[in-house]
Amino acid sequence: VARRQRTSSYPMTSMDKAYGLVLNNSFPLPYIIKSYKDAFSHVLAEDVRAKGPLPPFPASVMDGYAVIAADTPGDLDVVGSSVCDRSNNTSRGNYLAPGQTIRVTTGAPLPLGADAVVPVEDTVLLSESDDGETELWVRILKSVTSGQDVRPIGNDIKTGEIVVKSGTRLGPSEIGLLACVGVTSVHVFKMPVVAVFSTGSELCDPDTQDLGPGEIRDSNRVALMLSLQQQGFSTLDMGIVPDEPQKLKDALLGACERADVVVTSGGVSMGEKDFLKPLLINIGATIHFGRVLMKPGKPTTFATIDTQNGKKSFFALPGNPVSAIVTLNLFVLPALRKLSGGSDLRPTIIKVKLSSDVRLDPRPEYQRVHLRWEPKDPTPWADSTGRQMSSRLLSMRKANALLMLPPKSDDCHTIKRGDIVDAMVIDRL
Amino acid sequence: VARRQRTSSYPMTSMDKAYGLVLNNSFPLPYIIKSYKDAFSHVLAEDVRAKGPLPPFPASVMDGYAVIAADTPGDLDVVGSSVCDRSNNTSRGNYLAPGQTIRVTTGAPLPLGADAVVPVEDTVLLSESDDGETELWVRILKSVTSGQDVRPIGNDIKTGEIVVKSGTRLGPSEIGLLACVGVTSVHVFKMPVVAVFSTGSELCDPDTQDLGPGEIRDSNRVALMLSLQQQGFSTLDMGIVPDEPQKLKDALLGACERADVVVTSGGVSMGEKDFLKPLLINIGATIHFGRVLMKPGKPTTFATIDTQNGKKSFFALPGNPVSAIVTLNLFVLPALRKLSGGSDLRPTIIKVKLSSDVRLDPRPEYQRVHLRWEPKDPTPWADSTGRQMSSRLLSMRKANALLMLPPKSDDCHTIKRGDIVDAMVIDRL
Ligand SMILES: [Mg+2]
Ligand SMILES: [Mg+2]
Repeated sequence: VARRQRTSSYPMTSMDKAYGLVLNNSFPLPYIIKSYKDAFSHVLAEDVRAKGPLPPFPASVMDGYAVIAADTPGDLDVVGSSVCDRSNNTSRGNYLAPGQTIRVTTGAPLPLGADAVVPVEDTVLLSESDDGETELWVRILKSVTSGQDVRPIGNDIKTGEIVVKSGTRLGPSEIGLLACVGVTSVHVFKMPVVAVFSTGSELCDPDTQDLGPGEIRDSNRVALMLSLQQQGFSTLDMGIVPDEPQKLKDALLGACERADVVVTSGGVSMGEKDFLKPLLINIGATIHFGRVLMKPGKPTTFATIDTQNGKKSFFALPGNPVSAIVTLNLFVLPALRKLSGGSDLRPTIIKVKLSSDVRLDPRPEYQRVHLRWEPKDPTPWADSTGRQMSSRLLSMRKANALLMLPPKSDDCHTIKRGDIVDAMVIDRL
Repeated sequence: VARRQRTSSYPMTSMDKAYGLVLNNSFPLPYIIKSYKDAFSHVLAEDVRAKGPLPPFPASVMDGYAVIAADTPGDLDVVGSSVCDRSNNTSRGNYLAPGQTIRVTTGAPLPLGADAVVPVEDTVLLSESDDGETELWVRILKSVTSGQDVRPIGNDIKTGEIVVKSGTRLGPSEIGLLACVGVTSVHVFKMPVVAVFSTGSELCDPDTQDLGPGEIRDSNRVALMLSLQQQGFSTLDMGIVPDEPQKLKDALLGACERADVVVTSGGVSMGEKDFLKPLLINIGATIHFGRVLMKPGKPTTFATIDTQNGKKSFFALPGNPVSAIVTLNLFVLPALRKLSGGSDLRPTIIKVKLSSDVRLDPRPEYQRVHLRWEPKDPTPWADSTGRQMSSRLLSMRKANALLMLPPKSDDCHTIKRGDIVDAMVIDRL
């Protein structure tokens, strides 16, 4: 202990450089085949094209009558009906002759010969069969043009058209498009599996009712795992590991064997029990950075190792709860988006207006805020979540954005209420 | 058929009125007890308070030396160490006397008597034990004030403080806060279970490779279910139901027995096979509206029924894929948020700038756009997703907002590129 280093041996890395190192050492995982139902939030690894047109037949846009446009307005002979049905044969006769019409429902196929639809509201029934079951003659009140209220074949999707491009992350509508064109098995990039553990001999399970001396409850693991799951990544819960080198080493090796990415919190400062950096080197990993010029999150550590099963990444996040969640958003999520084949890696950055003065720190700072849109004002107000200490998890409560504050300079110590700064959106608005 | 109504018997309901009817007929479900781990995205039904303070002991903010501030600067006798450990007894002696110091790691308890911490960087080791294991004397280079780099007891959370308020929807950080204070079992509102089926005799499963005449694939069910799941609601897949009254009635009754909310698509227009409205009445439900002045989504139908197991809601959405997803966002999701105990019901509405001219419709219209922020401009550009026909699911691709366009008026037919309009955020940005 006495001969320990009294200053960190890791150079202070700038945010830009650290972010670049993370992305440059993260590569898309191999692609796999998935059913469209299980492909939600995966990134497509192929262009998906329509094998046939949609609609596959000329379809009515309204409930009404299929007509020959030239016959309108006028009185027409009702010779059948066409409804939405897979056994639809579109009419008594198969061809609409001049002076004839058939009833059609929304989405139903038009008979051959018809080139327009008249909505039912623009018609009057002239005569019906004696039993009142069948329409015989109908008066078309308005004139329609050819093509009116008809979706021609391929109107919505053409044969061969790309409906979802390679590189797209699949949301509900994109999956709906796959269903629509019958492509129910797709190539997608594998989603990374993330192992998560908390380090620290002071930590106990959240279930612990009465804390012993020196004990605190582990809140990082559940918060990190849920943040990852919320973004569609699957997690492995590796529990709490005490500050003991052998146990930590076993945990790192075990996690790296079972997962693509390992996320830990704690154990990365300069204390005598901060074993993670030396252990990462000990197991053969390369540490790309071990300190970042940022607040919170200074001791954030990123390492990779090449194994028989591919490159594995380690994000050793700081133990303070806010630091862990902020650095997860700034470094881990972009890396996971890249590993999963995505291209929109960084969260969206928008302009926001401060609702209170902010004093700048010598380091670039990421303060937690809640965005609030006022009527008529395009720029949202950024309401602070309160005291911004990195230990104060309450400052993450309701936070949906991180202010991206520049470091303090000689000319600028404070940003004033009403001033506009950049903010990173980290949650649904 | 001949004696069918030629105009809808349902009055055209305004958007505001329809939205009000949905909310006024939706009530929070009973609350239940859940483990904090399973409570994600649920709404808390009680205030959660801290039973003890955090930190539970005065804790160091740095790796360094716990000192009596009045002793600094100066040379101090190193009498022990305090690390983060649940068996921590904080030092050789239990009390720091003047002239003494102990080493502390970040987060570790301070010994009695100490009132400040000096970071290790601001110290020099003067002497060590012969074996190099133990520090004996250390020089404190800087003067510190009482309280420096110490988190006093309760700094982050005070005993009895509300850490998460009743009515809060629980995200990763809020669940972390529950873990933090050891409240691992909480009262939350039950999340509604939503049964989803598609109606239409023309529909076939997406797996169908070669479409028969009149057939189209059912894309609504998977898109609606995933949209619901994405927001944390659980879904029951009730399949495709053909346009046959008895089958539809059985499906409605079965869904209503197993779920809190039933979402269907199709069968609500004025065609002779549109059985849903009469069937809802037939099973005893009250239809609150059956037509809405909006585009897309005009035939959207909302009904409720009181059963032995509480009030059940039916959203009979239009069959066009875009109409179904848009009305899910406008009506169903706000209702589900209210049923699940939430208070932020409507999606966030922001100001956006049109990137192309938009022609107005006689109805209020919800066009699909993708929002794009340009550097230095606080107002996002709204890029159209292309042709906006309600049958064209491609117009939902990549859409993360809905323009809220006013109806056409005598003075205003078009909104120009660069003009600012309201938009509803419907996805992560
Ligand atoms: Mg630690
Ligand atoms: Mg139908």
